[in-house]
Amino acid sequence: MTQINAQCRLAARPVGLPTASDWDYVEEPAPEPQDGQFLVRVEYLSLDPAMRAWMNAGRSYIAPVGIGEVMRAAGIGTVVESRHPLYNTGDCVQGVFGVQRYAVSDGGGVAQVDMALAPPPVHLGALGLSGLTAYFGLLEIGRPEPGQTVVVSGAAGSVGSVVGQIARIKGARAIGIAGGADKCAWLVDELGFDAAIDYKAGDTAAQLRAHAPGGVDVFFDNVGGTVLDDVLTRLARGARVVISGAISQYNATEAPRGPANYMQLLVARATMTGFVIFDYAERFPAALAELAAWLRSGELRSREHVVEGDIEQFPDVLLKLFRGENTGKLVLAI
Amino acid sequence: MTQINAQCRLAARPVGLPTASDWDYVEEPAPEPQDGQFLVRVEYLSLDPAMRAWMNAGRSYIAPVGIGEVMRAAGIGTVVESRHPLYNTGDCVQGVFGVQRYAVSDGGGVAQVDMALAPPPVHLGALGLSGLTAYFGLLEIGRPEPGQTVVVSGAAGSVGSVVGQIARIKGARAIGIAGGADKCAWLVDELGFDAAIDYKAGDTAAQLRAHAPGGVDVFFDNVGGTVLDDVLTRLARGARVVISGAISQYNATEAPRGPANYMQLLVARATMTGFVIFDYAERFPAALAELAAWLRSGELRSREHVVEGDIEQFPDVLLKLFRGENTGKLVLAI
Repeated sequence: MTQINAQCRLAARPVGLPTASDWDYVEEPAPEPQDGQFLVRVEYLSLDPAMRAWMNAGRSYIAPVGIGEVMRAAGIGTVVESRHPLYNTGDCVQGVFGVQRYAVSDGGGVAQVDMALAPPPVHLGALGLSGLTAYFGLLEIGRPEPGQTVVVSGAAGSVGSVVGQIARIKGARAIGIAGGADKCAWLVDELGFDAAIDYKAGDTAAQLRAHAPGGVDVFFDNVGGTVLDDVLTRLARGARVVISGAISQYNATEAPRGPANYMQLLVARATMTGFVIFDYAERFPAALAELAAWLRSGELRSREHVVEGDIEQFPDVLLKLFRGENTGKLVLAI
Repeated sequence: MTQINAQCRLAARPVGLPTASDWDYVEEPAPEPQDGQFLVRVEYLSLDPAMRAWMNAGRSYIAPVGIGEVMRAAGIGTVVESRHPLYNTGDCVQGVFGVQRYAVSDGGGVAQVDMALAPPPVHLGALGLSGLTAYFGLLEIGRPEPGQTVVVSGAAGSVGSVVGQIARIKGARAIGIAGGADKCAWLVDELGFDAAIDYKAGDTAAQLRAHAPGGVDVFFDNVGGTVLDDVLTRLARGARVVISGAISQYNATEAPRGPANYMQLLVARATMTGFVIFDYAERFPAALAELAAWLRSGELRSREHVVEGDIEQFPDVLLKLFRGENTGKLVLAI
């Protein structure tokens, strides 16, 4: 019996926050796997700020989603039919299956999910691209030394929350910047950050001065905008600024705001570096093993913000990211 | 007989371009050197874009010039009276003597000028801090490899003109960005740049695409503003952006313009790094020896834009920098 495949397709390139007219909800028969393929029923979708960038035309690190195409998304699901030698019905697999209920795959970019290690949403968070982004961005680009001060923005998000915890594991001080007292309390009380700064509560630069009197050695930025500008004024000599994202700017309807204080890079003899996590793909297995070990030992905590719903709700759930309504990894469980 | 010391002192912190009321012209008796000191009659003043930054309050890599203080400036002059064991009357010396006709020094930061090597203005240009800034910024931060493409903004200035020539010496392609056809012709015809882009003549990004189809491996930025944003869109993978200055922004009356396209650092996996030339002071002698050798062999050409005048004219001559009226090193010969 052919299943109905619900899909969320990109209908138009959004201006500002995506609205209903930027999406098409489509139902069609689920595809049939050919030889060397298998069919996945998608059960968990990863929601990521980068999705907003994928919706724009123009030069980026990955091709934009085409108009009329199923929206790109990482997900986890179950193999329900297989004509592939390495995948069997019932396997739990992870891959870029798109915002749809059923996806056909030839195994490219797909990995088996070790359910014994952690439930599926964790594999989209601390054990997924979020955790890997934190791991490589912090350790390869930020390179904190023991005793140095690491500041991370978007600290209550899926990447930022892992960044601060890895900084602590490596003997650095971790200061998180997040929006709201609840998130800040969670960072300090539950995740062990040394301090948290609520950027909605006032002068971020002054709070940084108080919590990092010696300056910021590593800034891992997920946010951009005024937060980036504030931290630039507090860089320690030789600081490393890691450009991971700029969620505050993704929905800008005019030119995004550039860091007006970038000349502080000169004052501090500092470096600002961008990276793309896919460049480290060959080292993912080793990194995931280390992240998993930290999870098992309790040194690393993962939090997932799981919303139950169906494919049709994807556009609304995505907006939670841009409203700062998630704490930890935002996942849509279908 | 005591000489009259003409001085240009900072009277107020400018808003925008410095105006007459930001300066005090003062005449007073020249100071008397004490034991261990000598008196210099200043004959050449170095005019530098960074001077504008020194006039501002606030955190920078060097203390601001205080209100009422003699304006800071590097210069070259002759020792006219000495009570210092290492300096004799008649010595030609270089140091940060300030915008004044006579300065007393204890020898700190002062170097003898080798007049056999080149006339004094060259020692403020290609053989001075301008040449050293080009040398260390390009070779230590930019690190061009043979065959790579180096783009430099402010290319007809004292730093930029040397950057492009060193790039060529090291086997890289050199593209200069400058304002006006005359400057561009000079870069290509006289200095051997591979190409020059007149940013006043149209679409800088399109011209970059034409001249650097494989992208920009090293961008040495003296200018900031829209030029920086344009080059950011053309970075090659792994590019290095060297932040040397931002002359387009020094006189901004509102917040300076940050690079709105800075997320291209992520797309290109690129790095933007600031540096301060004084950090390399221990290596100046070796670098100057190499710069001098290139000058002697004809591989490096120095051009000085010498304006004859007296101390009182300093404020007007300084403005030439911000109007882009100089080609090569701007020097006031008193």
